[in-house]
Order: sequence, then structure tokens, then C-alpha cells
Amino acid sequence: MIDTTAALAHLDALAKPRGSLGALEAVAARLAATQGTLKPQTRPRRIVLFAADHGCVAAGVTAWPSAVTQLMLGTIAAGKAASSVLARTTGTDLRLVDVGTLGPKLDPAPDFYHYAPVRAGTGNLAVEPAMTATEYNKASDTVGEGEAHLAHLAGCRVVAAGEMGIGNTTPSSCLAMLLANVSLEDAVGPGAGSDRAVMARKREVVAAAVQRARALFDDDPQSAIAEVAGLEIVAMAGFYEQAANLGMTIVLDGYVSGAAALIAQHRDPSCTSRMIAGHCSAEPGHRAVLTKLGLTPVLDWSMRLGEGTGALLAMPMLDAAAAVLSEMATLADLGVGRQD
Amino acid sequence: MIDTTAALAHLDALAKPRGSLGALEAVAARLAATQGTLKPQTRPRRIVLFAADHGCVAAGVTAWPSAVTQLMLGTIAAGKAASSVLARTTGTDLRLVDVGTLGPKLDPAPDFYHYAPVRAGTGNLAVEPAMTATEYNKASDTVGEGEAHLAHLAGCRVVAAGEMGIGNTTPSSCLAMLLANVSLEDAVGPGAGSDRAVMARKREVVAAAVQRARALFDDDPQSAIAEVAGLEIVAMAGFYEQAANLGMTIVLDGYVSGAAALIAQHRDPSCTSRMIAGHCSAEPGHRAVLTKLGLTPVLDWSMRLGEGTGALLAMPMLDAAAAVLSEMATLADLGVGRQD
Repeated sequence: MIDTTAALAHLDALAKPRGSLGALEAVAARLAATQGTLKPQTRPRRIVLFAADHGCVAAGVTAWPSAVTQLMLGTIAAGKAASSVLARTTGTDLRLVDVGTLGPKLDPAPDFYHYAPVRAGTGNLAVEPAMTATEYNKASDTVGEGEAHLAHLAGCRVVAAGEMGIGNTTPSSCLAMLLANVSLEDAVGPGAGSDRAVMARKREVVAAAVQRARALFDDDPQSAIAEVAGLEIVAMAGFYEQAANLGMTIVLDGYVSGAAALIAQHRDPSCTSRMIAGHCSAEPGHRAVLTKLGLTPVLDWSMRLGEGTGALLAMPMLDAAAAVLSEMATLADLGVGRQD
Repeated sequence: MIDTTAALAHLDALAKPRGSLGALEAVAARLAATQGTLKPQTRPRRIVLFAADHGCVAAGVTAWPSAVTQLMLGTIAAGKAASSVLARTTGTDLRLVDVGTLGPKLDPAPDFYHYAPVRAGTGNLAVEPAMTATEYNKASDTVGEGEAHLAHLAGCRVVAAGEMGIGNTTPSSCLAMLLANVSLEDAVGPGAGSDRAVMARKREVVAAAVQRARALFDDDPQSAIAEVAGLEIVAMAGFYEQAANLGMTIVLDGYVSGAAALIAQHRDPSCTSRMIAGHCSAEPGHRAVLTKLGLTPVLDWSMRLGEGTGALLAMPMLDAAAAVLSEMATLADLGVGRQD
């Protein structure tokens, strides 16, 4: 079984100065370790975009109305969202799953769209639990884990998840505090763009919700998570947990994806061994979340769009890393001794 | 004619929070500006690897023997070098041009190999001019510009150049000092791996050669450059100058490529408007060279391999940037007003 150390030793034997591919070598070593082989596969691959709405939008935590979630679903369905474009250009199969938006089923809808609403948006976590235990299980197991099984059946070696849900950095901030002990100040960022007043409200809402969740956590961590999560976040967590279990490499996206990965890590610490952090976003809490997950990001490009865009942009780097591992000659093949 | 400002305005109108694609937006704006359009093309594309040997290896400036240049040519020809692998995985056509190695013509040789030696390695710049004016012109015009014409005839919209030549960070250090006023300390890095004694010798050799070149520069800058350059570096410079002239987008590689770009900039300052810096390498002088060229690197991954690897790794990012510019919906298409 190849681990990071063995992969780095192989990289040191290749026909190039030691370490001269810089950060690509770290990506290659990590990729090799997630699959336990020096010949990791990066295709076929798939990204699943989970969409849902958030009751906390009523608490004024974002500048954008919930209706935008549905409009963006239409844009993704039409192949014209950032995620659509980056999935196409990186050769990544895309699925779009409505796990609980406020909108109706898309009609007409493309083949890659799946309508599986657990409920029409979460409860408003400012004043009530975001979801019940039953809803949590449906989102996580039926929808999230189900999608991991489908990807596995399709032969995917690499999977990613992305999200669309106006308001979803608010539950993500709660989860970063609850599961990674991120401070309130770091945990609450601007999300998709918020002015000072919105940011202040978001901070109040998050602080109060986390206080409730923390009171529940010791007795019943799943209820604590359900208190402050989002349906698409829980679905992503189930997807990650099962994808790891099925042996697929998982590429994480931004802050919301990181919050979902924290849930998966909480439920099964071993699943982070299959994860690669696609990027570190501009959301201030994301770096601390990655630290808690024990991951180093592939890209550090100050992206903060979500929709899986950071995971998708990392895919060609994984292709390059896999090709370097599998296809390069060694110095020994050239009959040259190492001089560095 | 679209410039960077117009491209950024277009990016701000797309269906995403303003600036949320982070560094990818800067890449997209730069790419658009190099082609003067919001629908830039990134294919077909080609990388030309120019190979040559360096007389200064005799002065002990590197830990690797010149014979490695020829061995690496064979490895590139066999499709097993880092550059071969990254060209394949990024869908980039590759050409390999011997502009003056010490070795014989490769036999057998693949179709993509071109044997065009100007002389068998440069003179030792520690004690003599690296090349004559006639040799400079052959390398720059016949070989370098010729390759740009061939790429243009093949319909390329994006081109890159890379190099293979043991010892070639030494002339690059000289050129960084001569053309970008980089300090001796910053200009001389470890290259492909050098210990302290080799670094000290390299620094002495570079300092003395630059002193000779500076004495020539005011009267005859081309002679000054010929005094300290490399055949593959001069060929790259001619390639860049003509590629810019023919309207192709140029993706730069590392420190040696940067030195060649400085020559092209010196001969025709306008040609930098077609350039994109693929990456900033671990060689300490590279950042200052990019500053002199007025370029921001796409990747900052501490690579220091050369062979065009940094340019190649940036190619998928250009693909992503082009797709975002060309294929995404605008917020207006969604009927949504901007909230950020």
C-alpha cells in the first residue's frame, strides 16, 4: 500500500531535479496516497451539486434572496453557470440534485438533474432547529450516500461535491465553530457578498445558534449538527462519508464543502484519508477548517463562489500529478546518478 | 479592442458574486487582453522546447554534466520527460528543437524533433563570448522566429517555449542582471541543484561575465547579450518576439524563459502585451524578472524544472478562464440585480 512517503520517494527517483515540480509533487503524493497506488486514476470523475434553501435567509444573513437558488439551478441546468463551464472544460461529469430548495421541480429538466427534496428549505436556525433527525438521515443517507453509490457504479475514481443554496455560508459558519472550534470572528465571512450590517446580523445569528447546538452536542452530536446545518451540507457529508468508504478520491471545494467534510470527519475520522482539498477560499474560516481536516489546498486562489468551482479547477492539476507519477522516466532509466 | 478593464467589467456582469472566481478572473482578463477579445481561444496550442549546451559548464557552475542534455533529449523524444507528460495531459502539441547541443542528431528521431544546430554548444562565458553576432542571428531569426511562423501556420492561438540545456541558469542569471538590473545575490540561484561551492563559483562567473557585457551594452546591446546568453535562450527570444508579432498568446515558463522574454522585451517592448507568465519559479531572481516584464504569474508553485513545465501546467487554467469568459450566463440573463 503506497502512502505519501513512498510516493515522494518515487517522485525523487524521476528524471528531474529533486523536488523541482514544487507543489505539484505534494499534490501527486497526496493523490497517490488517497488511492494507495503510484498509478492513481483521475477519470472517470464526477461532481455532484447539491442544492437547497435556508430558513435563516429570513433572519437577514445575506444580501441575496432565496429565489436566486432556483434561478441558479436553471442556469446550471442550461449549462451556463460557472460550475457547468468548469465541469465541461475539465472533463468532469456533472449531476445536479435538489435536496430541498423552495422551488418546484425543474421542467423541462436535463438528464443530469435529480429531484429529491427532503423538505422545502430548512427551518430558520436563528430561532429553530434547521431540520429534524429524520430529515437529517434522509438528506445524508438516502440522498448523499445514494449519490456516492451511483458515482461508484459509474466507475468514478475521483468525485467532488458542490452546492447551491443562498444563505448556506451561515450554517457553514455554525459548523466550523461547532466541529473545528473556529472563532466567531473567523467563522463568519462575507459569503456571496454582504455589507457591514448584514455581516453583524449574520454574526449574531451564528453565535446564538451555535450556543444552542453546543448545549446539545455532548448528549447527541447529530441533533446538534441538525440544529444548525443545511440539507445540501448534510447530503454532501453523507456523500463524502460513503465515497471514502467506497475507495474513491474526494476533492473538496470551498467553505461550505469544508463544513460538510467536518461532519463526515466527525462521523468517521478515517474518511479524511481519501480527501484532497481543491482550494482554500477567501472565506476567512476556511483555512482553519482545512487545518482541522489535516489537508493542504491544491490552489490558493481567493475564490469564494462555491458550486464546486474550486474542486473543478483543481482537477487538471490532479490529471497532471497522476501523469507525472505514471508516465515519467526515472534517472536510473537514463543511467544517470543523482547530482542533487 | 478588449483590454483588461473591459474584460474585468464583463466578468463582473456574469452570474456569480463579484470577483468570486478570485485569481482565475485575473487570468481571464489577461488572456482576453492578449487576444483583444472576450472570446479568446486557447487551442490549438503548441510548446516548442529549444535545447542547447553551454560552454560555462566547464567553469563548474552546475552539478550535472552536459551529457545530461542529450540524455534528456532522448527522454523527451521517447515521451517520458516531465514536459512530454504535461504536454500530453494538457493537450498541447510539442516540438523539440536542437539549436546547439554537444550531441549528434537523434537517431531514430520522432516527427516532432527538429535538428538545427547553430554551433555545438556556446563558448564558455566565464572566459569568452558565448556566441558571435552571426550565431545570435541564426539562433534568433532562423530557428526561433522560424518556429513561431510554423506554429502560426499550424493555426496555434497559444504558444509556449521551454528549454533543455545543462548550465542554462548561468546565462539566465547574467541576462537577469543585464536586462532587469537584478542583484547578483538574487540573480544566482541553485538552478537544477547546486551545493555551496558550486553556487559560489556560479556567482563569480556570472559577476565577471556581466561586467564584460555591461561594458559592451551601451554601444551594442546585441553583442552584450550574445556575450552571456545561450543558444536556446536566444532562440526562445526570437520565438517570443515573432509569436507576439503574429498575434499569438505567449505563455512563459520559468527563469530561463523569463531571461529570453527580457531579450524580446528589449528588442520590442510591445511584445510583452501578448505574454502571460505561466508561473513564478523557486529561482530567487524570477520574481524580479516578472516585475520587469510587468507580468503576474498564473501559478506560484515553487517549481524549478524548466522544460516548459510551468507553462504547460498553466494551460488548463487558461482553458478554464477562456470558458468562463465565453460560456457563462450574465446576471441580467437571470433577471437578477446585483446585490454585492
